[in-house]
Amino acid sequence: MIIVKIGGGEGINLQGIVHGLAQLKEKFIVVHGANALRDKLAEDLKQPKKVVTSVSGYASVYSDETMIDLMMMAYAGARNKRIVELCHQHGINAVGLSGLDGKVVQGVRNKAIRVYQDAKLKVLRDFSGKPETINKGLLDLLLDHGYVPVLTVPIIDEQNNAINTENDDVVSVLQKTMRAGTVINLIEAPGFLEDKDDEASLIKHIAAAELEAREQQVDGRMKRKMLAVRRLFEHGASRVIIADGRGEHPVADALSGKGTVIE
Amino acid sequence: MIIVKIGGGEGINLQGIVHGLAQLKEKFIVVHGANALRDKLAEDLKQPKKVVTSVSGYASVYSDETMIDLMMMAYAGARNKRIVELCHQHGINAVGLSGLDGKVVQGVRNKAIRVYQDAKLKVLRDFSGKPETINKGLLDLLLDHGYVPVLTVPIIDEQNNAINTENDDVVSVLQKTMRAGTVINLIEAPGFLEDKDDEASLIKHIAAAELEAREQQVDGRMKRKMLAVRRLFEHGASRVIIADGRGEHPVADALSGKGTVIE
Repeated sequence: MIIVKIGGGEGINLQGIVHGLAQLKEKFIVVHGANALRDKLAEDLKQPKKVVTSVSGYASVYSDETMIDLMMMAYAGARNKRIVELCHQHGINAVGLSGLDGKVVQGVRNKAIRVYQDAKLKVLRDFSGKPETINKGLLDLLLDHGYVPVLTVPIIDEQNNAINTENDDVVSVLQKTMRAGTVINLIEAPGFLEDKDDEASLIKHIAAAELEAREQQVDGRMKRKMLAVRRLFEHGASRVIIADGRGEHPVADALSGKGTVIE
Repeated sequence: MIIVKIGGGEGINLQGIVHGLAQLKEKFIVVHGANALRDKLAEDLKQPKKVVTSVSGYASVYSDETMIDLMMMAYAGARNKRIVELCHQHGINAVGLSGLDGKVVQGVRNKAIRVYQDAKLKVLRDFSGKPETINKGLLDLLLDHGYVPVLTVPIIDEQNNAINTENDDVVSVLQKTMRAGTVINLIEAPGFLEDKDDEASLIKHIAAAELEAREQQVDGRMKRKMLAVRRLFEHGASRVIIADGRGEHPVADALSGKGTVIE
């Protein structure tokens, strides 16, 4: 089993990625983002994304009801269905699901986010949370009958509300349940970089044991990403590959060891 | 088995409908629209819907790639996922699918539409077509495991392109495959009306045998709707109820005989 996460950046080569997925011999599950599309849609609809930074230093999108609608449109709507369309064009029998569908990804809504706004500490509650459980029965049902699940946010909370979450966390809980051997994360960079502004500073290998130390050296989203990778190993992954989703053959390149290979 | 079609108008009481669905003892499948949402989104994005009228008198939305994206956002995205969310809030284990997902609704793309535009006859090819087959295997798989499929457009064509189609035609081909006893169509009117501008002119009963004659008396979308209803009987329905989706209890009202009952 392989879990393939496809980033939601503008430069991601969906066509190339799906072409590569069609060559895989193992079963796989796709998790994808759509942040560029969501941001563009929000801008076009004059509903700019609100980003808040929690007191513990994690930046996240503030998800009111309007933002959840936007996410449904961008992630579960246009992006998910265009990926599913591409999959079928490459012979992959894809079924696109948000976390709501069959409660395939269920989480717990954040009680409150403590944020600094205009230099003041505020307590906000939005429609966001953390994924906790995967409906393995539904995924196995699909996989056993030849379907490839293509998952995205939003997910569903314990009160059956649609909530936003980080796709990295979805991959983490998915890995915990499905125990993939390999997790591939296709992003808009050659892999993890020593210097985020220098694509030549690619870190080619990381030992899984190093992850915790590295996590302390970085901030914000990157910190969260490192933590997410560490959890994948805690949940039985033997190899995590962070690789470029922009090239001509992102999946084959990743599997041949380009990018950051963590094992 | 009951097939419930939920119209996409603004006045449709989704909450009330889903509450009613949760009381059903029989298995059911939902097909829903989202035209009001699509139109609003198109307007907000300054991409107004293009409506063309074929030479044979049927009006339809002209579906270019942008329109398909909009449909993915409005139908398969926001509307589908909000209905799925509501279903879970009422204890219905819903799985939302566009026709693309697992090719659950596959069709044939229109070769060309002959239309009058500015009083000239033109031949246009867009991403629209007619549904032809249902992936019964996937629907049965879900239904047999306690999931309720919630279906919407777009669907997938023979070349694996996303195409627009009429939800009435989706219901028709769904009925042909799934052989529901009852089909309920919840719209923004009390049912079929003798005079479309007079809600008091409700036609309470129509004998299935009358449908062909009535079809000749009406135009445009209504003609298509009558034809669609007639096909449901050709495909084994014993009762079709066209009823008001705006009331407090649309499903219970429809089943108790309010609206237009055709049998």
